[in-house]
Amino acid sequence: MNDAYFMLQALAEAEKALEADEIPIGAVVVFEKQIIGRGYNQTEQLRDVTAHAEMLALTAAANHLGNKYLADCTLYVTIEPCVMCAGASYWAQLKAVVFGAEEPKVGFRRHGQLLHPRTQLRGGVQAAECAALMQEFFSLKRK
Amino acid sequence: MNDAYFMLQALAEAEKALEADEIPIGAVVVFEKQIIGRGYNQTEQLRDVTAHAEMLALTAAANHLGNKYLADCTLYVTIEPCVMCAGASYWAQLKAVVFGAEEPKVGFRRHGQLLHPRTQLRGGVQAAECAALMQEFFSLKRK
Repeated sequence: MNDAYFMLQALAEAEKALEADEIPIGAVVVFEKQIIGRGYNQTEQLRDVTAHAEMLALTAAANHLGNKYLADCTLYVTIEPCVMCAGASYWAQLKAVVFGAEEPKVGFRRHGQLLHPRTQLRGGVQAAECAALMQEFFSLKRK
Repeated sequence: MNDAYFMLQALAEAEKALEADEIPIGAVVVFEKQIIGRGYNQTEQLRDVTAHAEMLALTAAANHLGNKYLADCTLYVTIEPCVMCAGASYWAQLKAVVFGAEEPKVGFRRHGQLLHPRTQLRGGVQAAECAALMQEFFSLKRK
C-alpha cells in the first residue's frame, strides 16, 4: 500500500463528485495504513465554499480519532490543494500531503510555503488520471 | 450601524468562545445591514481544526442565503484571519473582510494577498477590545 494505492482511493471519491455534477476532486486521510476519513467536493450540493474534499476528509478523520491534530496522518487529494485547504492542513499538522495533478491557478503553492513545517509534500501521484477527470468534467460543461 | 457596531457583535460571539474555554475569536457575516451568520471558535469542542469562527459564520451565511457566493456580504472577525479562513473568504468572494486586532504570527497577511481581488480589507476596528479578550484567555491559561 503506497501513494499510488491511496491516490486511487481518492480518485474513487472524485468519481462520486463527478456523478454529482461537482468539480471532481476527492480526498482520503490515512492513519496507520488505514483510511479514516473520506471526502469529495460538495460545494454545489451543500452550497458551501468550505465543503472541499480535503476539508470534509480532515473533519471526518478528526472525528474518527477524537483528536483535532492529525500528526500521524497523510492527506491524499487528487488535485493540488487551494489556500483554504493548505491552511486547514497547517492547523491539523499533518505528517504529509500527497496530491495528484498540479493546479497552477488556484493551487496553494503559488503563495509559497503554507503547510506546517513538519508536513512533507509530494505531488504528481497518478497525476494523469486525476487531471483527466477534471478535463472530462469541464469538457462536459462546455457542451 | 457601522463597522464598530458589527465588530461588537463579533466580540459577543468571541465572549461565547471564552466561556467555552476556547481561544476567544468571534465572527459575524452581514448582508444588507443584517447579521445572517454568526460563529465563534469551536475547535476544542468539536475537535476540528476547521471550526474557526469565520468558517462557521460563512457556512451559516451561505445556508441563510441559499448561495455559496457571498458577494454582497461583509465578514467581521475579532482577530485577523488565518490562511485557511482567508482562503474560504476568497472562494466566497466577499465584499469586505473587517478584522479587529492584528495577528502577526498566524494572520494571513504575512503571506501576501490571499483574499479575492474584489474583497476590501479593513483592520483595527475595536482592536483593543478584541486583543484584550485574547490576552485574558492566555493569561488565564498560564496560571
